[in-house]
Amino acid sequence: MQEVLTGKYGEDSKLIYDLADQGGEFLSLRYDLTVPFARYLAMNKISNIKRYHIAKVYRRDNPAMMRGRYREFYQCDFDIAGQYDPMIPDVECVRVVSEILTSLNIGDFVIKVNHRQLLDGLFEACGVPSDKFRTVCSSVDKLDKSPWEEVRSEMVNEKGLAPSVADRIGEYVRLTGKVDLVEQLLLDEFLVAESKSARDGLEAMKLFLKYCTLYGLQDQVSFDLSLARGLDYYTGIIYEAVLLRESIGVGSIAGGGRYDNLVGMFDPKHKNVPCVGVSIGVERVFSVLEARIISSKTKVRTTEVEVYVASAQKNLLEDRMQLCKELWDADIKAEHSYKHNPKLLAQLQYCEEMGIPLAAILGESELARGVVKLRQVATRQEIEVQRETVAEAVRDLLNKINEQS
Amino acid sequence: MQEVLTGKYGEDSKLIYDLADQGGEFLSLRYDLTVPFARYLAMNKISNIKRYHIAKVYRRDNPAMMRGRYREFYQCDFDIAGQYDPMIPDVECVRVVSEILTSLNIGDFVIKVNHRQLLDGLFEACGVPSDKFRTVCSSVDKLDKSPWEEVRSEMVNEKGLAPSVADRIGEYVRLTGKVDLVEQLLLDEFLVAESKSARDGLEAMKLFLKYCTLYGLQDQVSFDLSLARGLDYYTGIIYEAVLLRESIGVGSIAGGGRYDNLVGMFDPKHKNVPCVGVSIGVERVFSVLEARIISSKTKVRTTEVEVYVASAQKNLLEDRMQLCKELWDADIKAEHSYKHNPKLLAQLQYCEEMGIPLAAILGESELARGVVKLRQVATRQEIEVQRETVAEAVRDLLNKINEQS
Repeated sequence: MQEVLTGKYGEDSKLIYDLADQGGEFLSLRYDLTVPFARYLAMNKISNIKRYHIAKVYRRDNPAMMRGRYREFYQCDFDIAGQYDPMIPDVECVRVVSEILTSLNIGDFVIKVNHRQLLDGLFEACGVPSDKFRTVCSSVDKLDKSPWEEVRSEMVNEKGLAPSVADRIGEYVRLTGKVDLVEQLLLDEFLVAESKSARDGLEAMKLFLKYCTLYGLQDQVSFDLSLARGLDYYTGIIYEAVLLRESIGVGSIAGGGRYDNLVGMFDPKHKNVPCVGVSIGVERVFSVLEARIISSKTKVRTTEVEVYVASAQKNLLEDRMQLCKELWDADIKAEHSYKHNPKLLAQLQYCEEMGIPLAAILGESELARGVVKLRQVATRQEIEVQRETVAEAVRDLLNKINEQS
Repeated sequence: MQEVLTGKYGEDSKLIYDLADQGGEFLSLRYDLTVPFARYLAMNKISNIKRYHIAKVYRRDNPAMMRGRYREFYQCDFDIAGQYDPMIPDVECVRVVSEILTSLNIGDFVIKVNHRQLLDGLFEACGVPSDKFRTVCSSVDKLDKSPWEEVRSEMVNEKGLAPSVADRIGEYVRLTGKVDLVEQLLLDEFLVAESKSARDGLEAMKLFLKYCTLYGLQDQVSFDLSLARGLDYYTGIIYEAVLLRESIGVGSIAGGGRYDNLVGMFDPKHKNVPCVGVSIGVERVFSVLEARIISSKTKVRTTEVEVYVASAQKNLLEDRMQLCKELWDADIKAEHSYKHNPKLLAQLQYCEEMGIPLAAILGESELARGVVKLRQVATRQEIEVQRETVAEAVRDLLNKINEQS
């Protein structure tokens, strides 16, 4: 229902797709997986859960195919919901992102982190009225794509901040570092004296970075005061993963944070369940991996077929079908031509193109002698095996080929 | 775009979800995966491909949760596109369905098959005007849920068939059998003399059933003249898989057929690519499996956690985090409490509830001695291992437990 999404996304709400009214129901397509997850927890009265979810979301935005930005795209979300001690689930989410990106072998990355309470405290200390915190957050969030001068101009001219206020924000949001930056800011008289929220945020960040080190994440995590995240619902730690060297400009490939007040918006008694989670942009990851595969000119197999059943003469379709059945029954991935009388050369060329390691070649004289030829496609080596034990022989040969490579 | 879907689904078109006009674009949600697949082939000029696709589709229908019928649900489609010899890809689709249903261990099933050309020929022979073939097809398709009398009444009163025509159809659409029924119908003077289409359809069915036997499908396939499939786009063989014993009334759990003219509807020059495919209803399969799990009272693990890192005293959070990191680095699925100071009993109970096979218990005195306790949760057997080699010891113990079970 449309009302599920209303008032959850702030300035991004204009990107929601609505459905036509075809009978009195006002529906929208989901914008992300976080809001539906929060609604699910509230509706089913679930007070703790850890889960992942891969599914499509929809945004009425300008697509950029090459950079993996679509209107209909997949997200992979991982969330931990429940009343727990500070920062323990929060740092696990970062570890999960780190493991995923490392195992994808997608290249060096950094996970930028910041804290909404620190940002709010910073805005407070700089003199931003509290009803403008979220909209100023949206402006700060653009710093990854726009220079400070543009963001400052938006703050002053569109959001109505005094130029001096914007300038004070600007001094902070360009800072990045590690735990030493947290220590330095904790000694910053202006920030810490003016705002309890900033102090709390910094203390939380200090604990978070300590846990990051325990989980082996110290080199991948960067404390970055320009990270703001556009969405309204975050209440604590926020993160965003970016690749250090990628040429196609996908931007961040994962992002998330803590959202402790979202579940309560769907509960009749406004009972909250604290949550923290992260979302990976599947198409962005694919775009980067695809660009890498193309530039490295490595060949990627598009099927897992292990053996191709070929025929050397005409009228052997039924023999091919019979052998395929036996191979399938033995859990071997087999395929044969969909043509009645395919040419042998065409069949063997297909094996080479598709990278199929083995061909089982049926011939009249061989069948008369009760044997079948097995051909290693790469080496063109051929052996004869008994017709009754082809599946076994194929399995042995595949194991041998796998060991060699 | 809406026009992609228009005119492809016949009487079911009323179930398409349209999007609101938010800026001059007329969009709809996809109704199935077949029409988008055909559009994809045409747009990318692909003349042959074999692929599967699991994704959501949307129908503005009355949901029935218990029977696995939703408005938003997953289909798993498998299709073979390309100009090939008759019935070879068609029978492979049946083999794929059979392998999937068998490996899911979902219970005995039958795959009903029929042929659109035979149905059209039957309608022709019985005297149905050709512009009513598709709408009469829709009526016949209801025979799996409604008695013949109701379907007959729809044909006569709503579709305008003469009662005698409907009665002649009724004599045929209640027939089911194997290849002997095909042979019998090929000798049926009325049908075969009146319609070339019926004869061609029967010859095609004969070939199809021969190939089914070669692929070992003879016991699972049933020739059923009442099978019609509601959708307009089928042109040849049609199939539908139903479970023989299931109590929740999901209906068919897979269906499909040949659609040789759909790709041409998206090609500027109307160039066709012959296709055959099958679609599995994912939620229906899940409903049946879930009902079976519930009735069998077997416990299903909801996570794959292999080892739980527990602490016997307070203030060991950082030690737990450190050990988890080491286990994760060694590709072992590990978890620990999100609380600072959890009670040991609560931690061990959690392991039992979640079916986690192993617990690594950290204690102050053990850590002082450089050891960690490993506890088999099921047997409560405990051993001590060196702190530096916990990951290795866990791996060995997990292998031992797996071998025993």
